[in-house]
Amino acid sequence: MNEVLQCMERRYSCRLYDGKMPEKEDLDVIAAAAVQAPSAMNRQPWEVVVINDKALIDRMDEESMRVLAQVPDKSFYNRMMERGGKVFYNAPCMFLVLMQPDRGMDVGIVAENITLAATSLGLGSVICGLAATPFNSPKGEEFKQEIGFPRGMEFGVAVLVGYAAKESTPHEPDMGKIRFMK
Amino acid sequence: MNEVLQCMERRYSCRLYDGKMPEKEDLDVIAAAAVQAPSAMNRQPWEVVVINDKALIDRMDEESMRVLAQVPDKSFYNRMMERGGKVFYNAPCMFLVLMQPDRGMDVGIVAENITLAATSLGLGSVICGLAATPFNSPKGEEFKQEIGFPRGMEFGVAVLVGYAAKESTPHEPDMGKIRFMK
Repeated sequence: MNEVLQCMERRYSCRLYDGKMPEKEDLDVIAAAAVQAPSAMNRQPWEVVVINDKALIDRMDEESMRVLAQVPDKSFYNRMMERGGKVFYNAPCMFLVLMQPDRGMDVGIVAENITLAATSLGLGSVICGLAATPFNSPKGEEFKQEIGFPRGMEFGVAVLVGYAAKESTPHEPDMGKIRFMK
Repeated sequence: MNEVLQCMERRYSCRLYDGKMPEKEDLDVIAAAAVQAPSAMNRQPWEVVVINDKALIDRMDEESMRVLAQVPDKSFYNRMMERGGKVFYNAPCMFLVLMQPDRGMDVGIVAENITLAATSLGLGSVICGLAATPFNSPKGEEFKQEIGFPRGMEFGVAVLVGYAAKESTPHEPDMGKIRFMK
């Protein structure tokens, strides 16, 4: 099995980081991999904002936890509290992928490149749709302004990247979801 | 640069195949990579149907071209005619990814694993949203029945895979779409 296949097989969703910022060189390489993703008609309907600012991520995290604490169903909030009380798992860096409306499939492709590039460099990562929370919160407009959402662009997806404080294992793929016509 | 990063960099959208079926072993490996993709809450809201049946793909191709020929704006149809008159580029194999409704981002992630796995094995591939066309055509229900769309599952995305009859180069990534906060 080649290194690419091995990388896909060993990638896991890292849910605890030590908070230390990866080397800038590694972040550059991951960002380049992100924009190499294919897109429909090669429109590249995205912008990749590398939030290499842990203080900002921590503020977004606090606001997200405040929002989640107010949701009537407490199960998700409680799970986050059990995992350390941080929705962004103490990650030092977030690759925020903004998109034109309805380009979710395109940014999914980008996100996979980011998480595989991070894995190939020995970094932990997790694709995090929950990172929409701070932008939909009462402080959402403030965060969008601080980060600089260009007109017409919205939250697409985010990938948290950093050094794993806790290694984990990949989920068990369900091979029953594969079917051959012949 | 490691093999994973190199693979992302050299992947291109292959738009002409020689029609020869890849080895079953390679198709198995690509399908396994597909279902190793991460998904929101690990729901794995997909099914991967490997259409390793060129005759079926050719019938879907014919029906798609018939539909495209009827579109008032002929520019797309004409481009396909210039490229050889086949929307599926004479590919011998299609990885059809069915999904639960509104899981476009999840299947985008799956599609990227498929195309990278194929690239790593020396095969050509292209993510093909246009593969929705036969299923939305007058013969759509027949194709869905023949392939066996499970209840509640719909077309997500498709990836064509085969041996490239014409090598090509990757698109130029737009590095201007990357921004660092610090």
